[in-house]
Amino acid sequence: MNTPLINQLGIVKRNIARAEREHVEHLGQLGSATVHEAMGRVGLLKPYLRPIYAGAQVVGTAVTVLLHPGDNWMMHVVAEQIQPGDIVVAAITAECTDGYFGDLLATSFQARGARALIIDAGVRDVKELQKMGFPVWSKAISSKGTIKATLGSVNIPVVCAGMLVTPGDVIVADDDGVVCVPAAKAPQVLEAARKRESFEGEKRAKLASGVLGLDMYQMREPLAKAGLRYID
Amino acid sequence: MNTPLINQLGIVKRNIARAEREHVEHLGQLGSATVHEAMGRVGLLKPYLRPIYAGAQVVGTAVTVLLHPGDNWMMHVVAEQIQPGDIVVAAITAECTDGYFGDLLATSFQARGARALIIDAGVRDVKELQKMGFPVWSKAISSKGTIKATLGSVNIPVVCAGMLVTPGDVIVADDDGVVCVPAAKAPQVLEAARKRESFEGEKRAKLASGVLGLDMYQMREPLAKAGLRYID
Amino acid sequence: MNTPLINQLGIVKRNIARAEREHVEHLGQLGSATVHEAMGRVGLLKPYLRPIYAGAQVVGTAVTVLLHPGDNWMMHVVAEQIQPGDIVVAAITAECTDGYFGDLLATSFQARGARALIIDAGVRDVKELQKMGFPVWSKAISSKGTIKATLGSVNIPVVCAGMLVTPGDVIVADDDGVVCVPAAKAPQVLEAARKRESFEGEKRAKLASGVLGLDMYQMREPLAKAGLRYID
Amino acid sequence: MNTPLINQLGIVKRNIARAEREHVEHLGQLGSATVHEAMGRVGLLKPYLRPIYAGAQVVGTAVTVLLHPGDNWMMHVVAEQIQPGDIVVAAITAECTDGYFGDLLATSFQARGARALIIDAGVRDVKELQKMGFPVWSKAISSKGTIKATLGSVNIPVVCAGMLVTPGDVIVADDDGVVCVPAAKAPQVLEAARKRESFEGEKRAKLASGVLGLDMYQMREPLAKAGLRYID
Amino acid sequence: MNTPLINQLGIVKRNIARAEREHVEHLGQLGSATVHEAMGRVGLLKPYLRPIYAGAQVVGTAVTVLLHPGDNWMMHVVAEQIQPGDIVVAAITAECTDGYFGDLLATSFQARGARALIIDAGVRDVKELQKMGFPVWSKAISSKGTIKATLGSVNIPVVCAGMLVTPGDVIVADDDGVVCVPAAKAPQVLEAARKRESFEGEKRAKLASGVLGLDMYQMREPLAKAGLRYID
Amino acid sequence: MNTPLINQLGIVKRNIARAEREHVEHLGQLGSATVHEAMGRVGLLKPYLRPIYAGAQVVGTAVTVLLHPGDNWMMHVVAEQIQPGDIVVAAITAECTDGYFGDLLATSFQARGARALIIDAGVRDVKELQKMGFPVWSKAISSKGTIKATLGSVNIPVVCAGMLVTPGDVIVADDDGVVCVPAAKAPQVLEAARKRESFEGEKRAKLASGVLGLDMYQMREPLAKAGLRYID
Repeated sequence: MNTPLINQLGIVKRNIARAEREHVEHLGQLGSATVHEAMGRVGLLKPYLRPIYAGAQVVGTAVTVLLHPGDNWMMHVVAEQIQPGDIVVAAITAECTDGYFGDLLATSFQARGARALIIDAGVRDVKELQKMGFPVWSKAISSKGTIKATLGSVNIPVVCAGMLVTPGDVIVADDDGVVCVPAAKAPQVLEAARKRESFEGEKRAKLASGVLGLDMYQMREPLAKAGLRYID
Repeated sequence: MNTPLINQLGIVKRNIARAEREHVEHLGQLGSATVHEAMGRVGLLKPYLRPIYAGAQVVGTAVTVLLHPGDNWMMHVVAEQIQPGDIVVAAITAECTDGYFGDLLATSFQARGARALIIDAGVRDVKELQKMGFPVWSKAISSKGTIKATLGSVNIPVVCAGMLVTPGDVIVADDDGVVCVPAAKAPQVLEAARKRESFEGEKRAKLASGVLGLDMYQMREPLAKAGLRYID
Repeated sequence: MNTPLINQLGIVKRNIARAEREHVEHLGQLGSATVHEAMGRVGLLKPYLRPIYAGAQVVGTAVTVLLHPGDNWMMHVVAEQIQPGDIVVAAITAECTDGYFGDLLATSFQARGARALIIDAGVRDVKELQKMGFPVWSKAISSKGTIKATLGSVNIPVVCAGMLVTPGDVIVADDDGVVCVPAAKAPQVLEAARKRESFEGEKRAKLASGVLGLDMYQMREPLAKAGLRYID
Repeated sequence: MNTPLINQLGIVKRNIARAEREHVEHLGQLGSATVHEAMGRVGLLKPYLRPIYAGAQVVGTAVTVLLHPGDNWMMHVVAEQIQPGDIVVAAITAECTDGYFGDLLATSFQARGARALIIDAGVRDVKELQKMGFPVWSKAISSKGTIKATLGSVNIPVVCAGMLVTPGDVIVADDDGVVCVPAAKAPQVLEAARKRESFEGEKRAKLASGVLGLDMYQMREPLAKAGLRYID
Repeated sequence: MNTPLINQLGIVKRNIARAEREHVEHLGQLGSATVHEAMGRVGLLKPYLRPIYAGAQVVGTAVTVLLHPGDNWMMHVVAEQIQPGDIVVAAITAECTDGYFGDLLATSFQARGARALIIDAGVRDVKELQKMGFPVWSKAISSKGTIKATLGSVNIPVVCAGMLVTPGDVIVADDDGVVCVPAAKAPQVLEAARKRESFEGEKRAKLASGVLGLDMYQMREPLAKAGLRYID
Repeated sequence: MNTPLINQLGIVKRNIARAEREHVEHLGQLGSATVHEAMGRVGLLKPYLRPIYAGAQVVGTAVTVLLHPGDNWMMHVVAEQIQPGDIVVAAITAECTDGYFGDLLATSFQARGARALIIDAGVRDVKELQKMGFPVWSKAISSKGTIKATLGSVNIPVVCAGMLVTPGDVIVADDDGVVCVPAAKAPQVLEAARKRESFEGEKRAKLASGVLGLDMYQMREPLAKAGLRYID
């Protein structure tokens, strides 16, 4: 069978269907908040995932890896499956804050063309990672290393920080968080996101001039209808 | 009735008694730690509220808003009540980390003269907020957007991050945290804070020269009395 | 008796056996992650301890202080026991996030030659501490001050962030976390850490050239043996 | 001045205006969930407050006490202010899980007529408290004792588990949580709660017979309007 | 399209492929720990999900519902899709502890044949639920009610407490936790679980007689090989 | 060397100096709160450790085991070192909530004479453990099993839930929590605890008769001196 189940152990899937490059790159220009809204306000990985340094903004296609607590063996297996433009999404089978990833693995990932790592655990060597320009969104930062003893899987569907990520999905990450767009939905999300974006400039100008959202969005009537009372 | 109760829903109070501007500005020069001490070590919002970027230091008068989880409708209502020098204090009726506030609302708040937002939930567009110089102290950063469906209130007393904030109170916020000074207490807190501050320079010089706090504060005797034993 | 028990109250031990300066300084050049690995992956203080500003990297010998929740009296007592090259390690007898330490105490500690503070609680004046170049690893940042009413101890063994720290132990701290090396183990840990370090440059070069860890570490065979299956 | 401010230290207010006994007792028959709904879904203390044993259901008028972390001195002061039918509501000036209260204090509180303790910290002797039939809603259970060194206050407004409690307010507590009804709102909340309650029996019978909420509450049309689609 | 995506909003799927009843019931006799092991140690919902009362042990087929924070509208929609032997699995689009479910909804669910509710949020009326014998595994208990304003979905794949649950999957829940077995894997998991189970009685008898696991599992040699040293 | 260091890996110490049986049993009659006070309010393991069922009260001598996250291999090694009257204290080298221990291991421990398990992680089979009368204090309950791959140690000093435990120390555990008394301190702690206990009955009788702690402990004067003001 070529379609692995979620959490199936001991599997490396080599061929995955990545979202189309053009959609991917355009989604990346829009930022995680806009993309999340365009998805209908779903798709966000839990906000406890934070960038290890501020200012990075990336987009890419997900290659996934499932690891055991305190064991980063599969990080070396996933490295081989990386193609330029990918983002590695790492899930753990139980809660863990250990440092699964440091400057050596980042060197390898970067050499393979990876743009970032999203990991529901910890990383280390954060100063070096910032110098290398290899961004990571993680749950923790920890010097604690890991062993290499137990099989996980690569490129199967995983749940990372509360969100299902399927290999090939689009990952948009910036200072506001990390959003996953299913590959099949990428075109329609892109269109919806662009529509949202196109109105932003005009709105910003109005608000900057002192126009209130109350008036711009015509909220006064529905607020009154809902029963809002003004008192002195 | 013109004095809304805490948590009363569906109310916007237009006229609030703000602390006197002069007291406000002077309190802002002293910093949250000094002001908190001058209050008798009360008044601090819980330390899980953190600035979205380092280095901001603000003071202002509170305008308050009570919101429901996942719903930022009242953010537009509070915008109209902002006067120059105000700080918006946002409380939520239940735990929530959603991103209630981004660059568009910040543009509007800034146009109205707001100096900052204190929110017991999440915000987004943090990179843009830093560029705009609009500081926020929040519980979370999250791309997750909100809906506009349920009434809350504006300018009623609220509990934000464990502290009662009454409209018009003085809010002092910096890298160390956020302190609320009741408007009526502002003059006496200011006086007490200044007294504390006036001794700091001299103390710092002594300590820098190697004098010990043990001697400067004459602690050796009370420590011995309390039973402290030195061994080799 | 000259050897205080863990958590014994009301004691200040003046003479402690510090790790040898040469070992200490060399360990500091290696970083917390390398030292932690060289220890056999033990010795790490829990990763909720975070630096109050990024980029600091320190090493030193531990002088310890045990404090009560909300009470920093013993901070002044420990100041007197600091020798140049020491790092103060502060444990609390119960969970607390109060701000035990600010710029005045930092001035005093720095004047005595302390290099850093590790504290399982909160600190304040973080902007000033960064300006002074006095790094702190803490559980929280909080404006909340403390009283001076209850005896703790100085230079007894303490548990700080889940790790036993004995006075004189080596503390290595950087952006990745804080590691404690027992004084007696310092020479052998140093040797093991250097061995690890010496191979890093070569490995990094190989990985940067595109060689996979799978091949460099000869993992393909053990992975296959463990049952890893590749599918298309 | 006879009206203490929130968090004012060193004050014991002897005369407080308790909600009317009749309203109090009737509210207690309705349970925290019904009362919370009747309040318009506000008034709930944070759900991390849990009963130390299951099955207790109490109502009473709040006498409040503000304590410092690790210090239960004021517990003895508040005991004197208890009148039969009161519930003690204890707030702490900072996060703390210490055991402020055990069987001795419970004996004293019970002798004074207190019905329960609500505390934003820890308690101990829980087996004895259950035997005595003295219920407690707390944040923690802990053997850790406290000192008696610092002044707090009694019968001032406090924030307990995120909710403002004013002396004399009605406290309704059961297995579902703890709700605070401001004394002035008690009559109207009681009326609203009774109205809710009166329909419950009929609804329950219908649902038990297999009628769907979809039909009973006529939700099919608004759901369809909102865009709900059924697929096979 | 008849196969909804994860998190797709506004959808109710009526026909789902439930795991075979026979496999389901047999899995329920084995308990969550045994089933989890038989799955290869995956499939567990996060352990913060706890039963609202001790002693319940259930098995059933999942019908799923996706809800918004603070909004339980879809609970009424899912009720109609329940068939006898089902367990409702409720996921929320963001963190929430509100009480989505009480005795009225439980009456309706029970009338439809539901055996339990698994919810990544809060519930209320827990005393009544225990009396009714309707077990719930939840993240919180809270009196806080919810509104009915926003569409979610029913019988789409959801992530609940960190685990993907697809409608029709087998849910095994007891005091130890909640495990999800994909419908397609049920037969093979059942077989593996039974094999594990069949050896348990014999092992227990040996251990009770004083035989050590070290000898029963022949661990002494591998431990020595791994380097374990005995000292006196 | 016969005295292992804290966290030293790969060691099993066979001969440990247990606290004297007579002191141990007497301490157990006093309960964790009284013993903790008699220690000078130190010695408590963090209160997140909770009993898996209510009502158990045990005392015993510590045999310790250090385990890796997700790996319970050493549980079988420690079983052999148990002597009648011991309590196993299990520490983990990193945060973990997995279920390390169930009814099979409990059968083995009980056959060896162990009275309880204290573990800074999770356990499972809690219904069976209660039936067997084998009490556990743990951080979590979880169906998640563990592997047997990595060496830890037995009977070395460990930090469990924030407290140093040395093999042979006295462990007192009940519904209020878990306290560790160093073996060398047992006699003096016992004496101090008995003194406390002897006054309790008399105090309880007085308080039950309505005497206030304020008078019984003569607190009125020190409170007045500290500045307490009564208002009406």
